[in-house]
Amino acid sequence: MPDTTGGPLAGLRILELGHFVAAPFCTRLLGDLGADVIKVEPPGAGDPVRQWGARHKGQSAWWSVHGRNKRCITLDLKKPRAREIVLRLVGESDALVENFRPGQLDRLGFSEAALREARPDLVIARISGYGQDGPQRDRAAFGVIGEAIGGLRHLTNHAPGTTDLPPVRTGISIGDSVAGIYAAFGLMAALWRRDATRHGDGRGRSLDVALTESILSLLEGALPEYGALGTVRQPTGGGIATAAPTNAYRSRDGQWVLIAANSDPLFQKLATLMGRPGMAEEPGYRGNQARCANVAALDAEIGAWTALHEAAELERMLAAADIPATRAYTAADCAADEQFRHRGMVREVEDSTLGPMLHPGIVPLLPDDPGAIRWAGPPVGAHNDEVFGGLLGLSEGEIAKMRQEGVC
Amino acid sequence: MPDTTGGPLAGLRILELGHFVAAPFCTRLLGDLGADVIKVEPPGAGDPVRQWGARHKGQSAWWSVHGRNKRCITLDLKKPRAREIVLRLVGESDALVENFRPGQLDRLGFSEAALREARPDLVIARISGYGQDGPQRDRAAFGVIGEAIGGLRHLTNHAPGTTDLPPVRTGISIGDSVAGIYAAFGLMAALWRRDATRHGDGRGRSLDVALTESILSLLEGALPEYGALGTVRQPTGGGIATAAPTNAYRSRDGQWVLIAANSDPLFQKLATLMGRPGMAEEPGYRGNQARCANVAALDAEIGAWTALHEAAELERMLAAADIPATRAYTAADCAADEQFRHRGMVREVEDSTLGPMLHPGIVPLLPDDPGAIRWAGPPVGAHNDEVFGGLLGLSEGEIAKMRQEGVC
Repeated sequence: MPDTTGGPLAGLRILELGHFVAAPFCTRLLGDLGADVIKVEPPGAGDPVRQWGARHKGQSAWWSVHGRNKRCITLDLKKPRAREIVLRLVGESDALVENFRPGQLDRLGFSEAALREARPDLVIARISGYGQDGPQRDRAAFGVIGEAIGGLRHLTNHAPGTTDLPPVRTGISIGDSVAGIYAAFGLMAALWRRDATRHGDGRGRSLDVALTESILSLLEGALPEYGALGTVRQPTGGGIATAAPTNAYRSRDGQWVLIAANSDPLFQKLATLMGRPGMAEEPGYRGNQARCANVAALDAEIGAWTALHEAAELERMLAAADIPATRAYTAADCAADEQFRHRGMVREVEDSTLGPMLHPGIVPLLPDDPGAIRWAGPPVGAHNDEVFGGLLGLSEGEIAKMRQEGVC
Repeated sequence: MPDTTGGPLAGLRILELGHFVAAPFCTRLLGDLGADVIKVEPPGAGDPVRQWGARHKGQSAWWSVHGRNKRCITLDLKKPRAREIVLRLVGESDALVENFRPGQLDRLGFSEAALREARPDLVIARISGYGQDGPQRDRAAFGVIGEAIGGLRHLTNHAPGTTDLPPVRTGISIGDSVAGIYAAFGLMAALWRRDATRHGDGRGRSLDVALTESILSLLEGALPEYGALGTVRQPTGGGIATAAPTNAYRSRDGQWVLIAANSDPLFQKLATLMGRPGMAEEPGYRGNQARCANVAALDAEIGAWTALHEAAELERMLAAADIPATRAYTAADCAADEQFRHRGMVREVEDSTLGPMLHPGIVPLLPDDPGAIRWAGPPVGAHNDEVFGGLLGLSEGEIAKMRQEGVC
């Protein structure tokens, strides 16, 4: 049994039939807050994320984080014996999180009816590219495609006409991650309704979270603006259409420094710092509206000034003048940040395979009951004996037979 | 009283002392799933988001979505009478969501001790730029600054050396929104622990969600890779460092079309579609590793082909060849998408102020208990009488006095 060192979800058991990013990210969040997460992987190489990104000692560094706090077991879901085991695990679980292609679990013998027969009040969180129904449900779920359909990729670009370069990816699997957080939220909402003393109804519920829809939900007023006014939100590069100056400016040492001085008092401070105190009174820059109208010239002036100073020097000067600013943090900057360190948001974790590793901390932070990083992402099948034997009560002989027959 | 037409959170009451994006986004999610959200705004103009973005009939279209399902009341928190009223509302609420600057609510007389005296088992969700403690807690919380500190802005850029243009903003308030979802998740985790029949302890808990940390938590393996290997994750523009081809390519009619053909079978299909079936066997393009090494040339070849066809034609051809692809959706494309429409993720909502408006649907979707968009963002103070009178039982005379004295 895991050492449940607290967190609000201690006592909750979650079964993960997941892979790649979305479902495992959802269960990482649940495990961070104390849930007992049992992750089912195919025997052999396991979840492909174990091989993704830069490797350290032959293993993905990402996996150290992605798999933390999970009990990892292997089962070949195509084998009847594995199906029996999964349904027994369902019987011992509060919720299931999965991100197979819609319909695939049904075909493997895990229809909702079968799952609920094993555990009538099971909460089922399904995550997919486009949702469990509808004309596009069978479409292949690629993150970059889903983010583009959700409307994000159109916006992560410079203003039309600025460049021939394509719109950028956010650089991370943002659609999968946001879908994963939404699934964690919905799962807890369903569990609250199931379990609450006063409001609970004892019923299991199902969630159907789509990557595309998770992104669409973040688009502020883009949809109602289009519906009411016919205006189509366009990308605005490093800036914001309705506020200036706010952008990233290059320092002498080639770093990007964000400066957000888009109120009159902040702009006055910036103008003074730039040695141009009168600038805030020039007709072209007086008031936010004028500054937005002349933002290209304004950004060029600020950029000419930042190019004279190193990033660290700019940060010091801007902070002393109380102007919101920062360099664009790299992973190295994140790792060194005193605030992240103070709050345990960058911390060293002992990984039994990799040794000491840097992990991001637990979000959301509950200061009085924070949960813990109990262990880093474990090897494939590390908890087979513990789960099959300890939790389900199978004998050593039964487990050996499963291994022999390729069930686990 | 609101018409609680279901959703898993019906019966839950949330008090919002919020403004701008993060806290109101959190409560939008809770309200969408059925919670009774009471939002407190300053008398007069109310939440500044009511004026943000494109306006329709003098009101922000965004507000129609951002304020939906909320009961909006006004209170001048600096007035002692307003403080009394807020504490009475706290007494009637399960949870409080706030995003004032750290320490500001304390100064207004709403310390955690005062809040818990009014409601001992209150769950308190605090959202801020950098967290409630630590050396940087008092820093001004600007979204673009927080996203840069979280490590995202560095990555939303083209590869080093590609362009002098700055890294782009994602185009939306991604940091605030992600923090808002995390807060909703944490809040439900805390409520589950408080209320669950078997695992509940009856205790209120506090959450401390920071925008910077919410972003940092999404950075995949960037932090452990840096810690273990010293490698600093760099931006990769429209592509992915470890997979090719996957990028956005310009169509003849100037749209960006995403194509993700980064497996050998998919690339073979693409090569055939391009009329270059032998391309997949050329040494420079054979296997993902070779394609990644020659990605610039490969992307140029694909771009030369896409430039011959209109986006709609490319989408048809690529879909017929079963290659994951899509145009980068604008808000207009999202509004027209059959899958979004089928699943209620783009829907018409009658706004009592603005008339029919397009809203994004409810995420996460619980097909059997989905919650509802009961009403669109209401006018400032629309529910003063209902909440002060109906919920707290104040007389008409008492409410009139509050109005007269500028309390509400």
